[in-house]
Amino acid sequence: MKKFILVVLLFSSTGVWAQDKLIDYVKPIIGTQRMGHTYPGATVPFGMVQLSPESDTIGYELNGKYNPDVYKYCAGYQYDDKTIVGFSHTHFSGTGHSDLGDFLIMPTIGKLKLNPGTSGDSHSGYRSAFSHNSEVSAANYYKVKLDDYNITAELTTTTRVGFHQYTFPASDSAHIILDLVAGIYNYPDKNVWTYLRVVNDTLMLGYRQTSGWARNRILYFAMVFSKPFNSHGFQNYDRKETYRGFWGKFDQSKNFPEIAGRQLKAYFNFKTSEGEKIKIKFALSPVSMEGALNNMKAEVTGWDFEEVKNAGQQQWENELSKITIQSGSREEKENFYTSMYHALINPTVYMDVDGAYMGLDRNIHHANGFTNYTTFSLWDTHRALHPLLNIIEPQRNADMIRSMVAHYKQSPEHMLPVWSNSANENWCMSGYHSVSVIADAIVKGNEGFDANKAMDACVTTAYHRSFGGLGYYIDMGYIPDEKDGVSVSSTLEYAYDDWCIAQAAKKLGRTDIYEEFIKRSLNYKNVYDPSVGFMRPKLADGSFRKNFDPLTTINQGFIEGNAWNYTLYVPHAPKELIKMMGGNKRFVSYMDSLFTMDLPDKYFAETEDITRDGIIGNYVHGNEPSHHVAYLYDYTDQQWKTQERVRMILKRMYKPTPDGLGGNDDAGQMSAWYIFSALGFYPVAPGSVEYALGSPSVNGATIKLENGKIFTIIVKNQNDTNVYIQKVELNGKVLSSPFITHDDIMNGGELVFYMSATHE
Amino acid sequence: MKKFILVVLLFSSTGVWAQDKLIDYVKPIIGTQRMGHTYPGATVPFGMVQLSPESDTIGYELNGKYNPDVYKYCAGYQYDDKTIVGFSHTHFSGTGHSDLGDFLIMPTIGKLKLNPGTSGDSHSGYRSAFSHNSEVSAANYYKVKLDDYNITAELTTTTRVGFHQYTFPASDSAHIILDLVAGIYNYPDKNVWTYLRVVNDTLMLGYRQTSGWARNRILYFAMVFSKPFNSHGFQNYDRKETYRGFWGKFDQSKNFPEIAGRQLKAYFNFKTSEGEKIKIKFALSPVSMEGALNNMKAEVTGWDFEEVKNAGQQQWENELSKITIQSGSREEKENFYTSMYHALINPTVYMDVDGAYMGLDRNIHHANGFTNYTTFSLWDTHRALHPLLNIIEPQRNADMIRSMVAHYKQSPEHMLPVWSNSANENWCMSGYHSVSVIADAIVKGNEGFDANKAMDACVTTAYHRSFGGLGYYIDMGYIPDEKDGVSVSSTLEYAYDDWCIAQAAKKLGRTDIYEEFIKRSLNYKNVYDPSVGFMRPKLADGSFRKNFDPLTTINQGFIEGNAWNYTLYVPHAPKELIKMMGGNKRFVSYMDSLFTMDLPDKYFAETEDITRDGIIGNYVHGNEPSHHVAYLYDYTDQQWKTQERVRMILKRMYKPTPDGLGGNDDAGQMSAWYIFSALGFYPVAPGSVEYALGSPSVNGATIKLENGKIFTIIVKNQNDTNVYIQKVELNGKVLSSPFITHDDIMNGGELVFYMSATHE
Repeated sequence: MKKFILVVLLFSSTGVWAQDKLIDYVKPIIGTQRMGHTYPGATVPFGMVQLSPESDTIGYELNGKYNPDVYKYCAGYQYDDKTIVGFSHTHFSGTGHSDLGDFLIMPTIGKLKLNPGTSGDSHSGYRSAFSHNSEVSAANYYKVKLDDYNITAELTTTTRVGFHQYTFPASDSAHIILDLVAGIYNYPDKNVWTYLRVVNDTLMLGYRQTSGWARNRILYFAMVFSKPFNSHGFQNYDRKETYRGFWGKFDQSKNFPEIAGRQLKAYFNFKTSEGEKIKIKFALSPVSMEGALNNMKAEVTGWDFEEVKNAGQQQWENELSKITIQSGSREEKENFYTSMYHALINPTVYMDVDGAYMGLDRNIHHANGFTNYTTFSLWDTHRALHPLLNIIEPQRNADMIRSMVAHYKQSPEHMLPVWSNSANENWCMSGYHSVSVIADAIVKGNEGFDANKAMDACVTTAYHRSFGGLGYYIDMGYIPDEKDGVSVSSTLEYAYDDWCIAQAAKKLGRTDIYEEFIKRSLNYKNVYDPSVGFMRPKLADGSFRKNFDPLTTINQGFIEGNAWNYTLYVPHAPKELIKMMGGNKRFVSYMDSLFTMDLPDKYFAETEDITRDGIIGNYVHGNEPSHHVAYLYDYTDQQWKTQERVRMILKRMYKPTPDGLGGNDDAGQMSAWYIFSALGFYPVAPGSVEYALGSPSVNGATIKLENGKIFTIIVKNQNDTNVYIQKVELNGKVLSSPFITHDDIMNGGELVFYMSATHE
Repeated sequence: MKKFILVVLLFSSTGVWAQDKLIDYVKPIIGTQRMGHTYPGATVPFGMVQLSPESDTIGYELNGKYNPDVYKYCAGYQYDDKTIVGFSHTHFSGTGHSDLGDFLIMPTIGKLKLNPGTSGDSHSGYRSAFSHNSEVSAANYYKVKLDDYNITAELTTTTRVGFHQYTFPASDSAHIILDLVAGIYNYPDKNVWTYLRVVNDTLMLGYRQTSGWARNRILYFAMVFSKPFNSHGFQNYDRKETYRGFWGKFDQSKNFPEIAGRQLKAYFNFKTSEGEKIKIKFALSPVSMEGALNNMKAEVTGWDFEEVKNAGQQQWENELSKITIQSGSREEKENFYTSMYHALINPTVYMDVDGAYMGLDRNIHHANGFTNYTTFSLWDTHRALHPLLNIIEPQRNADMIRSMVAHYKQSPEHMLPVWSNSANENWCMSGYHSVSVIADAIVKGNEGFDANKAMDACVTTAYHRSFGGLGYYIDMGYIPDEKDGVSVSSTLEYAYDDWCIAQAAKKLGRTDIYEEFIKRSLNYKNVYDPSVGFMRPKLADGSFRKNFDPLTTINQGFIEGNAWNYTLYVPHAPKELIKMMGGNKRFVSYMDSLFTMDLPDKYFAETEDITRDGIIGNYVHGNEPSHHVAYLYDYTDQQWKTQERVRMILKRMYKPTPDGLGGNDDAGQMSAWYIFSALGFYPVAPGSVEYALGSPSVNGATIKLENGKIFTIIVKNQNDTNVYIQKVELNGKVLSSPFITHDDIMNGGELVFYMSATHE
């Protein structure tokens, strides 16, 4: 209780903090231009519903060929677009691949159009022109004027319910369109099946089955209007409808209660008076239509849009206030709290209010005693997002691990998730970094899950010989280049994952596992070629591949990266890496070159997922394998360079503007990097209890821990010039090296940075 | 107790009866040639599994056009074929439209072929030549030698599990193919989605979703081998596979644990020794793979094929023994017990062992206190099959009605089933004859369901204005010809259904409903044109259509029938019909003409679903609307003609041979007609308690009733010549008219026919 008073006093004493609402600094629009792949719409923390506008629903194919623009629309919205197609209920945040975009809703007036039209001409279909002037994009609230129809659209959500509010002009022919054809990344035949049932003149139930990035996905819904429609109709755009037969007894196009098919659209007709609001509650369920309806009833009882919006915003406020920062800069606060916002969107809740969810085994399961999550973009998020959760919400992180272990149990391949969504595994990227998340939680003493069972899952996963060259890795200590296109990066990632398993095994006293995996964790050495000083593709005969260009990312044995960057990917053994690369001096020189070299344009053109600004020299911040790199100077005698580089990256890669992200936010990983780095420390190797210090860009911060303790960061004399650490005191004691431990944080206390304009 | 002893003595005294097994008279092969559309495979009474060979799996399309041969393969097997493609788990019995054929399994040896090949050349694919010499088709047992592979296939079932036993030769390359592409009536894109998971080297789980006659159908399975396979593989024949991406990490074609797609096949490889048996248990579930596995565990514990076969045969024996007949003719017994067999296949159980089933609303429901059924071919089966069940198993019939009312509650259209299967309504044929089944049960005092709730469902159904012209019918008393292609037959069927509702309402004391519907039941009069003496299409202006040919079935306002036959379709008011048609003499003359006229070939060619033999004069026994017709003489002064015609029909339309059925068995209705007629009475108008007497073709029969009573039929002096009734005594009292009531039967007692070679 005493502590609580202390906090309140602290807040009060610092002026602005006490009255500021942290959500006011959240700008979901950040990253919606170019490569950020974030979405501007409404969601609550870890919400199942992500209700957001689609500015286009580009198909995967264009005139029978791959449409390169499909990549732009991973989140359904691009800031430069001039039209909005509609509002759909599911979106990935910041991913580099796409799916979802389920259940597109669009309100219109006038002549009914069921075709979305083309982005260049809003009159060509039901889409509408819009302007950013009328647009509000906030935490759990999105608003926009649909100029073609003079309709104001407002969106908010609860965990499982999307709440739409459309303010219409007076019209005898107002429509609400539900487009079940629309979807993000509409690969040919992606829509497997859709079903819609009109229960009465306000309630609709249905589902959509797709085969896209998630190969075998189903999502159910329940949709309720605040006002009965006057009439409704369907259109079936199936290439070829299946057997109709005696269905011809009915006129199915008008006011018929049900439709099923692959390419369906429905419309609901209303008369509206000037300024009349038609509201929609749209609940989702991974289990059943009944489940969706129950979710709706449990989460939203009335029709008060403001109440729902406010409740969701309060959830955000609660999440954001786990870290309060001191900063004189509104931009810093916007960057920080939008990073918090983007970090706390994924993973997403994946179960009904009664705990039922679809398992990887296509059976319905019940989450007993935990919340089940999905959307695990683990190649990205194991690096900083899950470590962040281990600090600010370990219980939730434990539930995520329980979800991962449930996934493992249900997995036909008997593997922990790699990149999973909606009861599907898409195996995206490399490694099996669930083990990093689990090991990090184990070594950090997170006790919210069965550590030994999770460890068993890790070990089984790590022995899956037919997974991405793992058999070769186990037998030979590396993956031969002939056998796998990304043999080097996979070897490096497996070595890191092995080390994670070893660390957790050690903590659990499972010595045999430790011994085995600590040995495997040394395999990074097998792909290092000392003659060139790079990690390099190695052939089955033990020789290094001749054809080798350390600058290119194409066909060099690395995934999303080149040898220059990936050579530094030994997060678990930086000291050994430095030694292997020739010692302190040569390593520092390598690092300096990385950050300062002039990368020829042809190499940039190859680099995936990032803008030109996303590269500093040859350092690619937009792709995750480099996220620990700036902190590697901490292991040399030139630690000030970590401080300098981190501040440079914070400044250049994050701006509180639509184009403010240098690359995909990657389900919050880019944002989590920001949060750690802005606070002054970073988990170089999750699975270790150690954090490397960088250079805090905030003037101070307070982290409220679940255990009731407070960890306070005070940064003295910090500004854009004073980026170098003069000294650091932990609880009044000067640190002798730039590292703190997890316990240092979790025990509560005070970390004081003394900053300076010079580094010596 | 006394009665029981009496029965035993009766059996003993008649010699053969006591030791005969009734299932020995069951020949499932009857009707498999030409139009019967029955299947020769294994099933238990009302079983969910119908495990039977496919002699071909013809696609709906042939070179882009409708393939007329698809009709032949409604049950997947045609007796004249020389090859077998495989054995699938679901089949309709005797229907005139097709679907199902789920989960085709084929054992082979030698070079693996995954293509079924063409019927003319078994070597063109995995199919095999076979001969009827090696074929055994019995109740719950089917056996055949697959000549191409020297493999003996044996099939048996429980309610939810198909049990295969394949006896292999010695082979290093024995295969069992699971073809998820195959299906009956494979309309383009019929396969919506299929999934297969190989849990271990003996257990597979999966499902198949189709959109065919049932628009939105899913069926789950669990499959277990008696012996582990050595390896397995998949082939995906999708026109275009959806996103693969990182699935490429794995070689999915070999020994991979799961696959999902639209066009999948799997194979499992074994080594076999000479005479080695590989057995498969294959369980179905309408709910989930888990449900299928539970069904398997509950119904079949071990691997004893004989035990499972015997248990199912005992179920048949129990069903068949509800009616024991006396006959000197093996053919008669084969006809009779095969009719019993075919009659007691449908409707089929549609729920897991725990009561869970898929509802019409696409939610999972639990049948509380009843068995849920599907496969309601009600346009056919309301006529005699359900009345038969009201006598020999009223409890089961009550459960069927509870299933129908559950269907109604879940129905998006709020209607009782018309033709339903697997949680789908296909609206096949006309009328809504659920009401006949319900009314028949109510008036006959079947108390196994909530009569008033069922009545409410009947009334709501009968008021569904947008269903097949019903709005016009309600407003105008008939359906105008301009509005509906089958306006006359629908008007007549609605009038009969209305009368059913009225009868039940009367019994329940719901006078308002009675008054309303008894009035509606007179509407048959509105489409009778006295100027020509036929029911005739009527225009909206009240005039009869000029263009009219009472012999043709095409475009005359009738479904599966012509004016000659349909004019007699007033089963609920024969006396009024006779009066309307000009009285006794003119009516008899009309009837005589019907049975004796020489129908020009061009009219036969139009007639659906029946062979040339299926027509007697212009009387079409193969189509149901005439099923009561022969009994209409009972309402004239020439009742002997009913006796004569019934015997003629029994003789000509039913033979114990593969081509023995004159038309589709129609889910048991044709067979139920046989059973009643062979016993000497028939329910002319279900919904009434009255049965009209015909001419029994058996020498006697004993009906064991659920209430413990026995109804005995004794037929004296009967043979093929002595077809006329001299007199009939009920419990020793001579009947004054050729009618008995339901109570006469259910109270137990003795009906004695005295037969003669002359009719006066």
